[in-house]
Amino acid sequence: MAEYNSLPLVSAAEQFAKLPGIGMKTAQRLAYFMLNQPVEDVEEFAAEIVKARHSVHCCEVCQNFTEKEVCSICGDDRRNHKVICVVEAPKDVSAIERAGGFTGTYHVLHGLLSPMDNIGPQDIRIAELMKRLTGEVDEVIMATNPTVEGEATATYISRMIKPMGIKVTRLAYGLPAGSALEYADDVTLQRALENRNEL
Amino acid sequence: MAEYNSLPLVSAAEQFAKLPGIGMKTAQRLAYFMLNQPVEDVEEFAAEIVKARHSVHCCEVCQNFTEKEVCSICGDDRRNHKVICVVEAPKDVSAIERAGGFTGTYHVLHGLLSPMDNIGPQDIRIAELMKRLTGEVDEVIMATNPTVEGEATATYISRMIKPMGIKVTRLAYGLPAGSALEYADDVTLQRALENRNEL
Repeated sequence: MAEYNSLPLVSAAEQFAKLPGIGMKTAQRLAYFMLNQPVEDVEEFAAEIVKARHSVHCCEVCQNFTEKEVCSICGDDRRNHKVICVVEAPKDVSAIERAGGFTGTYHVLHGLLSPMDNIGPQDIRIAELMKRLTGEVDEVIMATNPTVEGEATATYISRMIKPMGIKVTRLAYGLPAGSALEYADDVTLQRALENRNEL
Repeated sequence: MAEYNSLPLVSAAEQFAKLPGIGMKTAQRLAYFMLNQPVEDVEEFAAEIVKARHSVHCCEVCQNFTEKEVCSICGDDRRNHKVICVVEAPKDVSAIERAGGFTGTYHVLHGLLSPMDNIGPQDIRIAELMKRLTGEVDEVIMATNPTVEGEATATYISRMIKPMGIKVTRLAYGLPAGSALEYADDVTLQRALENRNEL
């Protein structure tokens, strides 16, 4: 930013610009907002975020974010602990829980295999998943994103699990609800046809 | 947010949701990002913003944000201190400086008159402006936004200044550059016609 902006504004804006999806213009707007707030409010904002970061850690079972040893899903007796849904990130757990209907448990990988970015099996939480499979598990649902990395990770893990005699499934591909055929991409349309269901 | 989100995530997201233009969904995304960052980075983020808020104060001349006693514009001898451009907020100073071409100084009101919100003349920095006018001033440019409050504030202040024999001007209304006549609102089009210039 140019010299006509005061130094505190520039440094606050630089911090906000580090956040994902926040460009320089929005960062500056947020910085202006912050510098206009009472000192106590700014201190509370900063302290709460630092506190949240300090108190969060990964559930020792499923690796999802929690402030406890074992997260509220893994600690819930009403859930089916024999079904494990494998996802890339904690936000995917939120998404599936928000959608509702799933009563099993989760396993958060905290990343996807990506040889391009030098991310191998030891960089994501695959070992922790394999350890859970020594217990009584009926099914592992691979719920990684339908991207190249998501597919590769799902395939890699399923090849490790299948020899153990555990059922491995993958989320269905198809048309998104409320969408139109004419706007669907080729791959999605092909998959929707291949996986057609009887009515 | 529902109970399946961990407490640290919820409290971090609540802090981000306080920012302007950040809804609950974006706030949650930012919270996820933060909880994934190294502790030191989160602490730096928080500390820098608090530091910026502590070090910022208003220029004792123009009331713009600065970390010094007198801001870099008011302290610049090359600028014309006899011309004062009156704006609502520090971000307006940035906007005009970014546009370039203005060589005078500024006065930041830190708000606009708004009887609806119980904001009167004593709540914005009008007294500080009047004090500056006892010195040598040729022109005061009212550069508040072209809104009801911006207009009212410009009119109010110009009525106070005119009896002092100082020239008071207002930013021009008209069509924005690159716009199309057919999309211009009625008021803008009327003003553009009224204030037409000879070619």
